[in-house]
Amino acid sequence: MPTTNVSVADAHFQATDNRLTYYHHHEKFELESGGYLPEVRIAYQTFGELNTAQDNVVWVFHALTANSNPLDWWSGLIGNKNLINPSDHFIVCANIIGSCYGSTGPLDFNPETGERYLNNFPHLTIRDLVKAHQLLKDHLNIDTIRLGIGGSMGGQQLLEWAIMEPDIFKQLAIVACGAKSSSWGIGIRAAQRMAIEADPSFYSSSPKGGWKGLEAARAMAMVTYRSKTCFDASQVDEQNTLNHYKAEGYQRYQGAKLHKRFDARTYYTLNKAMDTHDVGRNRGSIEEALQQIKAKALVVAIDSDLLFHKDEVSSLADGIPNAHFQEIKSTYGHDGFLIETQSLSHHLQQFLTQETR
Amino acid sequence: MPTTNVSVADAHFQATDNRLTYYHHHEKFELESGGYLPEVRIAYQTFGELNTAQDNVVWVFHALTANSNPLDWWSGLIGNKNLINPSDHFIVCANIIGSCYGSTGPLDFNPETGERYLNNFPHLTIRDLVKAHQLLKDHLNIDTIRLGIGGSMGGQQLLEWAIMEPDIFKQLAIVACGAKSSSWGIGIRAAQRMAIEADPSFYSSSPKGGWKGLEAARAMAMVTYRSKTCFDASQVDEQNTLNHYKAEGYQRYQGAKLHKRFDARTYYTLNKAMDTHDVGRNRGSIEEALQQIKAKALVVAIDSDLLFHKDEVSSLADGIPNAHFQEIKSTYGHDGFLIETQSLSHHLQQFLTQETR
Repeated sequence: MPTTNVSVADAHFQATDNRLTYYHHHEKFELESGGYLPEVRIAYQTFGELNTAQDNVVWVFHALTANSNPLDWWSGLIGNKNLINPSDHFIVCANIIGSCYGSTGPLDFNPETGERYLNNFPHLTIRDLVKAHQLLKDHLNIDTIRLGIGGSMGGQQLLEWAIMEPDIFKQLAIVACGAKSSSWGIGIRAAQRMAIEADPSFYSSSPKGGWKGLEAARAMAMVTYRSKTCFDASQVDEQNTLNHYKAEGYQRYQGAKLHKRFDARTYYTLNKAMDTHDVGRNRGSIEEALQQIKAKALVVAIDSDLLFHKDEVSSLADGIPNAHFQEIKSTYGHDGFLIETQSLSHHLQQFLTQETR
Repeated sequence: MPTTNVSVADAHFQATDNRLTYYHHHEKFELESGGYLPEVRIAYQTFGELNTAQDNVVWVFHALTANSNPLDWWSGLIGNKNLINPSDHFIVCANIIGSCYGSTGPLDFNPETGERYLNNFPHLTIRDLVKAHQLLKDHLNIDTIRLGIGGSMGGQQLLEWAIMEPDIFKQLAIVACGAKSSSWGIGIRAAQRMAIEADPSFYSSSPKGGWKGLEAARAMAMVTYRSKTCFDASQVDEQNTLNHYKAEGYQRYQGAKLHKRFDARTYYTLNKAMDTHDVGRNRGSIEEALQQIKAKALVVAIDSDLLFHKDEVSSLADGIPNAHFQEIKSTYGHDGFLIETQSLSHHLQQFLTQETR
């Protein structure tokens, strides 16, 4: 079981690092749902330098519980010895608003009330997250992004941005993501939110509130991030076991691990934001929205992905005017987008080479 | 949201009916884990009559949250106008111990303490449930069971019994069930138990304790009982929706629906009992255990089943000396075992006809 003497602030400190830079936007930030944030703070990291031609920007978009350091969570694909590296590229990654890794989120104090937002943090959509990325882009004086890359919720942000501002991106690499959140995905995330709501400390004024519900939500999510093959191969019990099976220990470990570095309000906010992903919203249709994309796109599915089925991902590729679809074979399910960096690097290299010929 | 003025006792009363008969076993009931129940009560229902040849017994085994009335929850397969009917068969169905539908369960008072068992109810295994069925069989003076039929947790009981007493059953129909609970299944159920544990009222002395956790657990389970195709086809939102998606409403409805007719302690107990399913435990191996089966078996998988993959089910069929494997195509996932009664009836009829030729 998790230790309870680690505060969220400590966990946050441990999980981030000293490389964070903050951009403060001291103006009202209107949200798609009609709400607003009085101001926003965007935590970000950059790696490498902008070249004189200003054509080496790689913008990396992180998923649900990650942070602004892709050299950490996407190592193998992004890093000093990897395809996307700071020697060749100016890598930018911003922590999404609503998160607990430096950008304005539910644990912050609302300047209008002097209290933490907690459960009063406003309803965010994927488009709201992109709007914050756009502020940062302007702040960094970036006009053109050579490559945008993101998987899962990161792919959702990238896709939205490439539709909102079609002239910014030259190339897109979208992994394990569709054009619209499926009812299946929404049902899965709703169950997780119900687990958090079942923990009454979620409604308390403690920043740690809801941690037991968060652990259950994470365990539930693990099922949809991995696969049966993966669980059965890695969690093997001794013969004649009657209780305390390894798969249960694994789930409790995964819950406790997230609890140490995250919090329930942040999880709830971002989990709900994922539901809103729909590139077709107020744009006529998904088809019309995707037609707006000018960038060339590599769209990658993991064949065993239970959360974002490969059919959903290939449909997305079908709708983008200039897209190449690639399926990666993996037993890791959705998490394959973070784990199969060798395959991803291979396909991305092919894509980048073709595009620059 | 669920009404909270319906007591568990009321819910229990509503969910069962007046047809229940009780067999009281006033002796210590030893459990596989080393614990015991001071006495057990077995609630059961019978439909039809035992013929003079005493060869028309059909024993039906219910799954996790069902009860002893298969004419209700397996209608289409079992009923007055169905393949398994009270005119031709003497149908027996016993509520499993640990349940809240009449047999001894966590809401009962422990005669040794005078308090409700609640969270002190002992750890049950599938073999313990079968041991109670055996007591009832003796009480009913049944020597031979023409057909045993069960799906999911019901199949687990049937399989165990056919190994423990190979001479009782002539035929078995096992649906959506394997020889051993997979780590995958255990991981899924562990997440559900974590959701229940996140609700501190689970640790209270109220029989309703843990109901919010139970609702979350049920919503989590729904994901593994159904399929993406099923969710996406049935939960379709209006265009441009930004919140309150139908899939979330569906999940909350399913949670509330179970809460009205079930309780968290019962769910926790039976959910954990499912983990223990392993026909090979203390029998050398799964292969050796399955070799004990003398009955002819029809083993049926649902092709879209996420909880009990068809490969797991066909492996079970491979291990039973005289078994026929059948795959049913369905978009309903695991719940197909309850819903696809037309296909099930068709394959079962073929099996029964062949076996009596």
